[in-house]
Amino acid sequence: MDLEKVLADNLVNLSAIGSDPTGGMTRLLYTDSWLDAQKYVEKQLTEAGLTAHFDAVGNLFGRVEGTKYPEETILSGSHIDTVVNGGTLDGQYGVIAAYVAIQYLLATYGKPLRSMEVISMAEEEGSRFPTVFWGSKNFVCEAKREDVEGISDFEGKKFVDEMRRQGFDFRDDTEAKRDDIKAFVEIHIEQGNVLENQDLQIGVVNNIAGQRRYTIVLKGEANHAGTTPMGYRKDAVYGFSKICSEIIDRAVEVGDPLVVTFGKVEPKPNTVNVVPGEVLFTMDCRHTDKEVLKNFTEEAEALMKEVAEHHGLSIDIDLWMDEAPVPMNEEIVAAVEQAAKEQEMNYRVMHSGAGHDSQIIAPHYPSAMIFVPSIKGISHNPAEETKHEDLVAGVKVLAQTLYELAYKE
Amino acid sequence: MDLEKVLADNLVNLSAIGSDPTGGMTRLLYTDSWLDAQKYVEKQLTEAGLTAHFDAVGNLFGRVEGTKYPEETILSGSHIDTVVNGGTLDGQYGVIAAYVAIQYLLATYGKPLRSMEVISMAEEEGSRFPTVFWGSKNFVCEAKREDVEGISDFEGKKFVDEMRRQGFDFRDDTEAKRDDIKAFVEIHIEQGNVLENQDLQIGVVNNIAGQRRYTIVLKGEANHAGTTPMGYRKDAVYGFSKICSEIIDRAVEVGDPLVVTFGKVEPKPNTVNVVPGEVLFTMDCRHTDKEVLKNFTEEAEALMKEVAEHHGLSIDIDLWMDEAPVPMNEEIVAAVEQAAKEQEMNYRVMHSGAGHDSQIIAPHYPSAMIFVPSIKGISHNPAEETKHEDLVAGVKVLAQTLYELAYKE
Repeated sequence: MDLEKVLADNLVNLSAIGSDPTGGMTRLLYTDSWLDAQKYVEKQLTEAGLTAHFDAVGNLFGRVEGTKYPEETILSGSHIDTVVNGGTLDGQYGVIAAYVAIQYLLATYGKPLRSMEVISMAEEEGSRFPTVFWGSKNFVCEAKREDVEGISDFEGKKFVDEMRRQGFDFRDDTEAKRDDIKAFVEIHIEQGNVLENQDLQIGVVNNIAGQRRYTIVLKGEANHAGTTPMGYRKDAVYGFSKICSEIIDRAVEVGDPLVVTFGKVEPKPNTVNVVPGEVLFTMDCRHTDKEVLKNFTEEAEALMKEVAEHHGLSIDIDLWMDEAPVPMNEEIVAAVEQAAKEQEMNYRVMHSGAGHDSQIIAPHYPSAMIFVPSIKGISHNPAEETKHEDLVAGVKVLAQTLYELAYKE
Repeated sequence: MDLEKVLADNLVNLSAIGSDPTGGMTRLLYTDSWLDAQKYVEKQLTEAGLTAHFDAVGNLFGRVEGTKYPEETILSGSHIDTVVNGGTLDGQYGVIAAYVAIQYLLATYGKPLRSMEVISMAEEEGSRFPTVFWGSKNFVCEAKREDVEGISDFEGKKFVDEMRRQGFDFRDDTEAKRDDIKAFVEIHIEQGNVLENQDLQIGVVNNIAGQRRYTIVLKGEANHAGTTPMGYRKDAVYGFSKICSEIIDRAVEVGDPLVVTFGKVEPKPNTVNVVPGEVLFTMDCRHTDKEVLKNFTEEAEALMKEVAEHHGLSIDIDLWMDEAPVPMNEEIVAAVEQAAKEQEMNYRVMHSGAGHDSQIIAPHYPSAMIFVPSIKGISHNPAEETKHEDLVAGVKVLAQTLYELAYKE
């Protein structure tokens, strides 16, 4: 089987479904193009010799039974939805890679000892409705009806109506989560520039970073920029600049994998000739170690308060997202690393700074991820791209990993 | 004559013309309320025994001839227009104070040796049309037709049409500027918090600060806040925070009267989870000494470029306003200071950090300004306020100054 060609054809075909007239891909949960994409995948799964079925909410599975341990399942896949005006790799590359890899293994080695299964998850991005990880959370029986019962999309269409319109519904809450999953491996583009900068083809992901997100409001006094001497000012932007520069300086000192970002800055009144009386800003901080993340952000909070006091500003600090890091399973990580070695790839073990379905699945089933490089680190954008040879390399490492997990005793 | 009561009544009456239904005052050039206000002042001037007339563009004058040196004129006044949703003191206090002071002098001392004149200038704020100092610039024959011939207000009404609708027109360009003005004294609210903080009633203004205004664009790379290690970032907001904090630190070191303000900050994409790839910000810098202003801003520009280079950012620095400081006339300043002493006021000599009509007039005629305190430094706002006793104190110092200049040999 020509793995390179099958991969390339599938990427082209699936990318045609939901291609955005303004460029890129827009394939949102429970839209028609979303259903067309899942049906395209269903057809490919069947043609690859897998038994396909949808679960209640629209996650798609394709399964081949193991000859010796059919009750032990090795699972691979990712999500089928995209962001608005996204690229052609985020999510669907992981779905296609899974069934192309399994198709290749079946063609090359015949049936596996353990069952192999593909999952094409309904939703991860949160781009249509204000909810994320709908696919993976249903798979691990963590999704809650009440979280989506009241929500609508930007056109006012209700989540529940749209789900039912496409023939899906809530899962049976009494159903227990599956106990046959022995491993989950997700392949995904890196969405960062580490692999490219280090000239590597494969990232073996051992951790998904935890993140804390804050919104901070500093309040001082809006004053005339000409008539208010420096000593009489309570300049909120000056306070912000101290906070931002000192916290980032400190983060650089602490070093990888700590990252901290002040992405949003909104002064008031935001006018050239008025001393800013107020500024709202965000801090996004991530690390793979829960304690380090906690300690660093607590230090940052203390520094913010100190700066505020020194500048005569009031401060309101709102921590509105606090997600713990999710370590991957050591054995599955080791299997991926072994596969990368056997395929003679340039690889490194690394963490993911972005969120992925694996962070929902890993607490329930032994999981690991494989990254391939993103050109210039771009994602969530029509310019999202990975060299075809790297996409092929990723599928080869995934296939090798699944071989280790499903074909060996 | 009861100076306090006449002042209070005039402030109440004039503030009723152009009072904004949303609070505060909105009295824009060549609107009906603007003309009503000028006509109200015209009536007061006449009743005070002055000869009133409008010039071509709508500046209003009220004159009493000197008995001995009628060809020497001592002038006082300010502007009649307001900002949108402004207060009841900015501008009109200086107009009312001038005719109340002259009325008081005439009642107390009879006719002056030199002529005294009130000017109620048509426009200073630039709040309706994109032009400023239309009143004072016409008075000193600096206004240019071509600057206003193409401009319109926010409703699309043409400047020229609106001027003519109210019965005014361009001045005769061939007319020379007046050579009889021996002194101009403008009284105004401080619009800052220096007098209040120092518990003073009077500011004797010896200089109007020069100002330089910049718009700066820093460009780096917008990256994923989770997947981009600190070492691989080109974070424009981080660069901005260094620039802002270091330049303000330096300004504080240099000390008064230097002020520097980063009033506008607009990052892109301005989202919590994206490293800001770009930021547009402004710098407003003022000082009373042209050389100090030039040197400080040139140092600031060099520092910005250095920071940009260090952070891998490109930088575009646009200096779009460069106004030189305007020193007041030493003799007129001394006359005001002498008057403040004679009236036993707590005063200080100070500069103005804000722009005023005096900066247009001072290069042509010997000028000085008098400030009264602004409560909390607030202006251009319905909350603009000054204690009535301070408003009275200001008129007394102005009257004393005019007495020194117009009644003494």
